[in-house]
Amino acid sequence: VTVAVDVMGGDHAPHAILQGIVEYLEQEPNPAFLLLVGQPEVMTTALANVNPALYEIVAAPTVVEMDDHPVKALMKKPDASIPTCAKLVATGRAGGTFSAGNTGACMVAAIQIMERVPGVARPALGSFMPTITGPCLFIDAGANVDNRPSHLVDFAIMGSVYTNKVQNLEKPRVALLSNGEEDSKGDQLTKEARELLKQAPVYFSGNIEGNAVFEHEADVVVCDGFAGNLFLKGVEGMGNLGIAHLKKCIAAETNPVAKKSLEDALHGLMLQVDYAEYGGAPLLGVNGVSVIGHGRSNPRAVVVGIQVTARAAASGYVKAMQEIFATLEPNTEK
Amino acid sequence: VTVAVDVMGGDHAPHAILQGIVEYLEQEPNPAFLLLVGQPEVMTTALANVNPALYEIVAAPTVVEMDDHPVKALMKKPDASIPTCAKLVATGRAGGTFSAGNTGACMVAAIQIMERVPGVARPALGSFMPTITGPCLFIDAGANVDNRPSHLVDFAIMGSVYTNKVQNLEKPRVALLSNGEEDSKGDQLTKEARELLKQAPVYFSGNIEGNAVFEHEADVVVCDGFAGNLFLKGVEGMGNLGIAHLKKCIAAETNPVAKKSLEDALHGLMLQVDYAEYGGAPLLGVNGVSVIGHGRSNPRAVVVGIQVTARAAASGYVKAMQEIFATLEPNTEK
Repeated sequence: VTVAVDVMGGDHAPHAILQGIVEYLEQEPNPAFLLLVGQPEVMTTALANVNPALYEIVAAPTVVEMDDHPVKALMKKPDASIPTCAKLVATGRAGGTFSAGNTGACMVAAIQIMERVPGVARPALGSFMPTITGPCLFIDAGANVDNRPSHLVDFAIMGSVYTNKVQNLEKPRVALLSNGEEDSKGDQLTKEARELLKQAPVYFSGNIEGNAVFEHEADVVVCDGFAGNLFLKGVEGMGNLGIAHLKKCIAAETNPVAKKSLEDALHGLMLQVDYAEYGGAPLLGVNGVSVIGHGRSNPRAVVVGIQVTARAAASGYVKAMQEIFATLEPNTEK
Repeated sequence: VTVAVDVMGGDHAPHAILQGIVEYLEQEPNPAFLLLVGQPEVMTTALANVNPALYEIVAAPTVVEMDDHPVKALMKKPDASIPTCAKLVATGRAGGTFSAGNTGACMVAAIQIMERVPGVARPALGSFMPTITGPCLFIDAGANVDNRPSHLVDFAIMGSVYTNKVQNLEKPRVALLSNGEEDSKGDQLTKEARELLKQAPVYFSGNIEGNAVFEHEADVVVCDGFAGNLFLKGVEGMGNLGIAHLKKCIAAETNPVAKKSLEDALHGLMLQVDYAEYGGAPLLGVNGVSVIGHGRSNPRAVVVGIQVTARAAASGYVKAMQEIFATLEPNTEK
């Protein structure tokens, strides 16, 4: 498998990205071949001790900044690292791409250059959520707002195919995020989507409440991208509140044994809730693998992000998604 | 101040409620006079050692169950504890009421019996959220779905008046929950509400993202009740995940000093995130004080819930809300 990595994107790019790349190539027993996309002059020092057979540098002279307007930036900088990565996937040179850069630009580049899977009206962002027994896939994490019910059905199918192919779940349980489990609960969008989901080619388990997501009652949780973004950021904020509290306790603890015990507890909590352990969000519904990392990605997040991208590329989920949407009526609601 | 307490409502009623009542009356230096509403026969044992000058029993022979349909239950059981509490407030016998019972029934009873504040189209549920420096008021926590932009403006005004009067905030900062801080972010509802909020009689500080709520960047956070419910339940679920993790660490720890240190850390986290410490959600936009506790309320939550209700009743926020809405164009969007 070949993975195109955007070296220039992210709050701590290029240093954190390059450090993650080096760690990935050093640690991984059977690493993917990497296309390192960006300004070659920023890469040389960091890569000095890496086996040159493991990667190739692809020059991309310009950079989409984190706060650039996605569409405008892509028009002005067609040779930037983000669109170059998308082109490497679209032309088949790479099996997938990972970027911790401008999320909007990554999505627009993937949609414009890899194009939508025929039949999908709106590609959506999947995001992995911590639960008591491992991650579940949350979709849409914020690619879209003002969705129509049929869009949520597409999200359900995309999430189902992804978890089936990439996570090897035979029958991924798909649930619809709502304000109650009963059929009568939900806003208009959710109620209409629920009726459509009962007919969709997924294992639909009904509504799920926000707190039940953490009990791992579903493998895929479907939601409009606006409410989904609020939900995920709220969860992230609460996770950070818990982490900050434990750090304060550690700082105030004088007994070394107790301090160590608190540090272990913090480490365990961070393994569960830290975005870095989930390695980024796949953009689903485009003809290629595009995994988008958190802007704050540290080297660890980059390592996991490249692993996730390589696994997704090897799984063949894009082909499976194209096949299932080819059997359905195309979604004409924009 | 007189507070009507629903003795029969809640997952652990009547025992947990009565225990909370006894603790409140024993601990509070200057307790509110309590009207204890419910079946007198369930109360006698628990109240045996309480000074009878501190309370009065108001008989309510029937009970709205936690899973009853709110509107149907109130029609069938007009003499149940929930509508009886609302009547005690509407007739002026009580300054406010607290119930940990069926949330929907509490809301419907308050709206039908106390009635809406003139000019308010939709009463909404306020909920206190933990932040790094104390609670902020989140509104709407789930009383309404499919809101119109003008409803969010009403929520902003109600939240602003409440925090001003009850929490003595001179200029409560009101923010609109959205998927980004920029003006361009939001779904259609949020974008339209944002324009209206710029003209509203509140200190509007713009959009706020879900994770920034925990940084206490706003005193009042406004949101549609559907997305708001998802957000709050997600936050609750993540808080529970952190609590469960610490409990597991405590159980596995053999060193007594380290165990105690972990227990202190857990206790501190629970003080921050435990619903019991926030004492319930005020229903705003009705002509009376109605505070609705979590169904799972334990005695501690009941103590705090009665305290919150008494403080809210003493603050005169309902009168202030009536006055400000009397100066505005009535909201005619249902």
